[in-house]
Amino acid sequence: MANYTISTTMQRPYGETVAAVRAQLDEAGFGVLTEIDLRATLKQKLDVDAVPQVILGACRPQLAHRALEVEPSIAALLPCNVVVRALDDTTTLVEAFDPDAMISFAGGDAAGDALRSVATDARERLTAALAALEGSN
Amino acid sequence: MANYTISTTMQRPYGETVAAVRAQLDEAGFGVLTEIDLRATLKQKLDVDAVPQVILGACRPQLAHRALEVEPSIAALLPCNVVVRALDDTTTLVEAFDPDAMISFAGGDAAGDALRSVATDARERLTAALAALEGSN
Repeated sequence: MANYTISTTMQRPYGETVAAVRAQLDEAGFGVLTEIDLRATLKQKLDVDAVPQVILGACRPQLAHRALEVEPSIAALLPCNVVVRALDDTTTLVEAFDPDAMISFAGGDAAGDALRSVATDARERLTAALAALEGSN
Repeated sequence: MANYTISTTMQRPYGETVAAVRAQLDEAGFGVLTEIDLRATLKQKLDVDAVPQVILGACRPQLAHRALEVEPSIAALLPCNVVVRALDDTTTLVEAFDPDAMISFAGGDAAGDALRSVATDARERLTAALAALEGSN
């Protein structure tokens, strides 16, 4: 686990975990706005064989809106990625970009305060979603 | 412009700028893997009226692959967002996530070195693409 992510390891196959992550994000109020099948993309573009993995772009519209109102540039940091990657046939890693990592970009002004507040809120929700996933192991 | 972005302002309407950005990213070897019409999303989810803006998820597969090989977690930072936002009817801002901002996440090990190298390469390409856009003003 990198220091810019929060993660959990599931004792479940890849496909099943992807479905569980989607359900949990939905539960937490995050829509999945984008989806990149990284394995398929690398195969298609470079003819490289990677492990099954998908990047889900998660966004909670209320949070995004709150941040955009004070700092439109925050769009460059949206959505929040949640990556699901097969470790082996029965083990799958779920790794989300840690919203706290965004805080290093926040200034000392009102926009910075808003960014910190949104990051904290998003982190709590994502952490809860990962904990719920872990509890379903 | 926030300190986690690189940007240029175009004296062109929004739609025309979006087309020019796509062409320039293609020229620079970045595919657009995801696209979020932020205005449409905020309207649909929250019934809020935002200015026309789109988040293009740009990825240069060779760079992504190089980084993923040494640090799979980097998937959480992909793709690189390029945001196009209308400032008024004839002026449009193009703002890309600054790959250098990723460097704050890099460790002192081989994976960190790879991340720095990829970020530098991506930044040079994006900066050149924005300069080309600016030159077409």
